[in-house]
Amino acid sequence: MSKPFPIITEVRLTPILIADPPLLNRSGVHQPYTPRLIVEVETETGVLGLGETYGDTTYLERAQELSRALIGMPISAVNAIGRLGRGASTLLDAEPAASGLRGALTTDKVRLSVLSAFEVAVFDALGRHLGVPVHALLGGKVRDAVDYAGYLFYKWAGHPVTESETDEWGAALDPDGVVEQARKFVAHGGFRSLKLKGGVMPPPEECAAIEALAAEFPGIPLRLDPNGGWSLETSLQVAERLHGLVEYLEDPTATVDDMAEVHRRTGIPLATNMIVTSLDEVRPAFDRDAVQIVLSDHHFWGGLLATRDLAAVCRAYGRGLSMHSNTHLGISLAAMTQVAATVDDLRYACDTHYPWQQEDVIAERLAFTAGAVEVSDTPGLGVELDRDALARLHERWKAMPHHRIRDDVAALRRAGPDRAIMPE
Amino acid sequence: MSKPFPIITEVRLTPILIADPPLLNRSGVHQPYTPRLIVEVETETGVLGLGETYGDTTYLERAQELSRALIGMPISAVNAIGRLGRGASTLLDAEPAASGLRGALTTDKVRLSVLSAFEVAVFDALGRHLGVPVHALLGGKVRDAVDYAGYLFYKWAGHPVTESETDEWGAALDPDGVVEQARKFVAHGGFRSLKLKGGVMPPPEECAAIEALAAEFPGIPLRLDPNGGWSLETSLQVAERLHGLVEYLEDPTATVDDMAEVHRRTGIPLATNMIVTSLDEVRPAFDRDAVQIVLSDHHFWGGLLATRDLAAVCRAYGRGLSMHSNTHLGISLAAMTQVAATVDDLRYACDTHYPWQQEDVIAERLAFTAGAVEVSDTPGLGVELDRDALARLHERWKAMPHHRIRDDVAALRRAGPDRAIMPE
Repeated sequence: MSKPFPIITEVRLTPILIADPPLLNRSGVHQPYTPRLIVEVETETGVLGLGETYGDTTYLERAQELSRALIGMPISAVNAIGRLGRGASTLLDAEPAASGLRGALTTDKVRLSVLSAFEVAVFDALGRHLGVPVHALLGGKVRDAVDYAGYLFYKWAGHPVTESETDEWGAALDPDGVVEQARKFVAHGGFRSLKLKGGVMPPPEECAAIEALAAEFPGIPLRLDPNGGWSLETSLQVAERLHGLVEYLEDPTATVDDMAEVHRRTGIPLATNMIVTSLDEVRPAFDRDAVQIVLSDHHFWGGLLATRDLAAVCRAYGRGLSMHSNTHLGISLAAMTQVAATVDDLRYACDTHYPWQQEDVIAERLAFTAGAVEVSDTPGLGVELDRDALARLHERWKAMPHHRIRDDVAALRRAGPDRAIMPE
Repeated sequence: MSKPFPIITEVRLTPILIADPPLLNRSGVHQPYTPRLIVEVETETGVLGLGETYGDTTYLERAQELSRALIGMPISAVNAIGRLGRGASTLLDAEPAASGLRGALTTDKVRLSVLSAFEVAVFDALGRHLGVPVHALLGGKVRDAVDYAGYLFYKWAGHPVTESETDEWGAALDPDGVVEQARKFVAHGGFRSLKLKGGVMPPPEECAAIEALAAEFPGIPLRLDPNGGWSLETSLQVAERLHGLVEYLEDPTATVDDMAEVHRRTGIPLATNMIVTSLDEVRPAFDRDAVQIVLSDHHFWGGLLATRDLAAVCRAYGRGLSMHSNTHLGISLAAMTQVAATVDDLRYACDTHYPWQQEDVIAERLAFTAGAVEVSDTPGLGVELDRDALARLHERWKAMPHHRIRDDVAALRRAGPDRAIMPE
């Protein structure tokens, strides 16, 4: 018999608020502070594992409820985590996400988003216990570095409220501003793919920004993502204009039918993190050929094993795989990198918001070299918790109850009528 | 940094011949001896890993060619194994399988069948190195025992050639014989599901055998598998007759179109290990709803990770998952059990030929209790090689070159015209 695996004896949930620049999207603007939830799993032998997920109240409440079931489980029981709370009727009904940028929010998606942080923390603990990197627990890395895309945003120079941090990125509200922002990404991180979050300016202006990027960075793969904000007609116009210029168009429009129509009529490759966000959404979208590239996300698909599962489904159906990101810190970037390193056919640069975050809860922030993050071979995820930083960001969460639910729509409304954005 | 993983320094391939009773199927009869290939992977630190796969000359030759690429790889590089030899044009063209009982044989399927044994051996070595069971490297077991079906065969009392072993099972050539055989399975292994290999007797006789089993073992799930040997018309007749009596009908007929038609017209659940045997066959069959349950097989799908991948695809498309078996020994049964233990939605009893094999290459044969094999928590696969047995069975392989390619058709032909079977 093998030596038994250590048992989980404690799960610490720490909600935090992290500073976020005034990045614009179809729904509105990022709040000055965004909630995240930091998960620490501790075992009887003192091994620690770290996880991170959405921190909105809806998630925090479910995490509190679900974490009780982790106590007493061995850290080898990763598959069993995905079953926690399944079919439980005692969970609160999920409220619709404020921003709605990743499709309709269901009870099961919230459950999986919470469990993903538990799963990552348990993988981290298991890796540390065995002295192996997490990727070795997923069949081993097939690459030594994972490519990320420079994630460009329309952006104000500063938040329109006094209670906020400042940033040095400046404004980006036209093609020149977008190109300038891209130059910083390329200069500092060496990014070799660029993605522009669209759905903010009139579509012709966003097309012009992509064209300006193509002129400035010839040969660099480009993407545009209006988060489903365009009508079918607008999507068709943009697809015609940008076909050949972008490697894919991401969620131009919001429904399976319209996405299918855009692809059928223009042939442009379409990616999504909105119409395929859970296993039950795969078939309707694939059957209609509404999606050519699926954006995985270990947070809302339920973890690292679920990400590998999604990759298998895409493989069987001849779909590409890329990776979505929402505002996140270093624990999640480490997890994204570990799993991405093991998926052979993840051939697109992954999305990440990470360069936009100046704060973190890990001791040494991860770095981008030539647009890539090196795959750590250190036991577990390869990151260490900065307890002072965690405590400081948790204090902020306690002090700012009005930021505990991220709501880009409300943040835009607070900015006043003159700061409105124009999705169409 | 983690301590580096040990490097593979040697791969030993030992072809063997194992005794096989005269089991009948659509193609013919099992030979007295069937080739298998035993793989030993050894590392610089002396850790050993065991794998097992088909041993026919076609597989052995590819294994010899592909094994060279394993040398120098760390035992953590499981994902990388699946890529070995991919797209290689130097591999011999695959010949059609003699029996054709698992669909058309392609170069890639042979490649994956070989790599599966390498992958299992590397997982075994990795588990032993880390001191953990293989299931812990697949996310951990979700059950402590894996159910198997008692695998009934029409059978002669003995092989019609002198050069063969004898067995104590006796003949089974009619419903009474089948029920008597089933009684032995239930009495000795406690099997709680029963599968009859069909395609041997006229279909009404095989239906009668199933009806006799249902009468003798009320409530026990039953299956019938003629290996695609029936016409559409016959399949429809059998489906009408056995609907409600079998949990599924396995490969009644050989094409996607005909399978789809049988399901559409009768509603009977259909399983397959013939029309969906690789990722590229998934979509055509699923799109037509030709298959409701896919029979996984880590040998020909390419390993344990590939088996989990298949499970994910089935989950996304609402298909059931079960497990196929061909003649195999304890190393493969251990691998089947380890991976099956980790797949939550593998809810059917798995197939296994294991009770038909009296010989083995492991020191302590695995046992069935209440039809299930306990999931080992011993490091690696939990089995040890019996070198004397391996050497003995390899000597037989050297001594009997005429048995090195399994050919059920030829074996039946050698039995003479009076031993012909009647598939329809």
